[in-house]
Amino acid sequence: MEMNESELVSIKDIYIRKVNGAESSFYSDILSIEEPLEIRISYGSEDKKTHKNISVTMRTPGNDFDLAIGFLFTEGIISSFQNIKKVYHSQKECLSQKKNVVQVDLVDNFVPHLQQSDRNFYTTSSCGVCGKSSIESIKTVSSFKHIENSKLSLSTDVLYQLPQKIKTAQSSFTLTGGIHASALFTIEGELVFLQEDVGRHNALDKLIGRALANNLLPLNSYILLLSGRASFELIQKAAMAGISIVVAIGAPSSLAVELAIEFDITLLGFLKEDRFNIYNSSNQVTILTSYTN
Amino acid sequence: MEMNESELVSIKDIYIRKVNGAESSFYSDILSIEEPLEIRISYGSEDKKTHKNISVTMRTPGNDFDLAIGFLFTEGIISSFQNIKKVYHSQKECLSQKKNVVQVDLVDNFVPHLQQSDRNFYTTSSCGVCGKSSIESIKTVSSFKHIENSKLSLSTDVLYQLPQKIKTAQSSFTLTGGIHASALFTIEGELVFLQEDVGRHNALDKLIGRALANNLLPLNSYILLLSGRASFELIQKAAMAGISIVVAIGAPSSLAVELAIEFDITLLGFLKEDRFNIYNSSNQVTILTSYTN
Repeated sequence: MEMNESELVSIKDIYIRKVNGAESSFYSDILSIEEPLEIRISYGSEDKKTHKNISVTMRTPGNDFDLAIGFLFTEGIISSFQNIKKVYHSQKECLSQKKNVVQVDLVDNFVPHLQQSDRNFYTTSSCGVCGKSSIESIKTVSSFKHIENSKLSLSTDVLYQLPQKIKTAQSSFTLTGGIHASALFTIEGELVFLQEDVGRHNALDKLIGRALANNLLPLNSYILLLSGRASFELIQKAAMAGISIVVAIGAPSSLAVELAIEFDITLLGFLKEDRFNIYNSSNQVTILTSYTN
Repeated sequence: MEMNESELVSIKDIYIRKVNGAESSFYSDILSIEEPLEIRISYGSEDKKTHKNISVTMRTPGNDFDLAIGFLFTEGIISSFQNIKKVYHSQKECLSQKKNVVQVDLVDNFVPHLQQSDRNFYTTSSCGVCGKSSIESIKTVSSFKHIENSKLSLSTDVLYQLPQKIKTAQSSFTLTGGIHASALFTIEGELVFLQEDVGRHNALDKLIGRALANNLLPLNSYILLLSGRASFELIQKAAMAGISIVVAIGAPSSLAVELAIEFDITLLGFLKEDRFNIYNSSNQVTILTSYTN
């Protein structure tokens, strides 16, 4: 697989007026960049290629290849890094020379599972649209649903250190205050990857794409830390990557909890440096309370 | 226009384990509900109706009709409340009896602008995909781009009271800690509407839909307050509704600022009870610093 990505700029300097009480003055400030990214694939035989626009997402430039690969994987369009022949930025249609199109060439004769990308429109269940059918439709595409996890022990000491660790590692957030992060930690609390994006789903796709490219999937022995809230969409992506521990700094939604239960994912929320809530406990994960605190 | 919506449940009680230091105990807790909502329209002549699924969004139940109407309007599919004949929940395909489909019947012979709903895929500009072309494509559909605003005076005293006012009004957030809000205030700081949702774009669509149904558009003399960050998508929706003052509790993205400049929207961020940042100042809006603080 060919993949070679040059550095993209993810922050932008501006001058703003800060008003404080009745005073105001000009300051130099930094914004998170948000730009559209179009993901395109091409597939078919050596003689006959089909080209398809898969998605446009508003993302923060940087790690675009991880994002494209992660998106294709978490949407069930590809099932392995080996499905990919080449990933590159396509510039031919952009006059402003921005790198806003990622082209993913799939290996010859691989058939992408494109019906899955319409999942939000056509649920397979006889029930038209409901949380239950959304969960069922994910079950049909997840490769890692039936993986036998080894039993994991997760220490509260490790958990309590994560908020500070993600804060330290989140360089763009420190600068802009306006970006989400997804981080992968080992069960001992060691940071493996961190990805940032203005869109929380993009940050997670970037993370899963990076893990896929590094042959780490299924991620069933890692901790996924989310900088904000846990929605259905994020737990869905986590489930697709076989993640069995998801920890959110913010609140989960009802459907996020239902999906975590269905996929036997340990889901923790409102993590702070001395406490958290348990929304679901996987049978595979034991939370060990440490008395050394 | 017929529109009659019964109350939907937006929160869910659960039991969770709270871990605090080395202690843990069971508590009753409350989650924000997240469920899919499908928006369908039907249009055509009296004799021949076309039915189309427009979108599925993960939303918090409640004010679904506002959401559907607001979405159709901010996407440019309809341009007025008068385009709508009837709005109702369709249950026929849902076995679980959940009200997750909203059907919008358009008035006879009205032609919805459906090409706009594919805007994210096909930008009209010769430049394939970039922030600039995203902004251009919105200009082509916004009805309120060239409205002459009357000059507005916005007082810092009014602004400094907004964080507390939105906090007080956000009933679901108080309960769950996991929901976004959009609120509309008069220029004197009086709350007009507040809408909540797990998705920030949904909260804003609900707000704009409600304003549309109340014949308040264009909203060029109101303040839009966003409980979190300001992304491109939110400023796009604000621009579609003719809003000229957007205030975010969080940070804006680069493209949000660019769009605000292009549409002459005053964009403030990081609003607290004694300060804020000015990312763009509209020519129509004067910010008055009060010395009574």
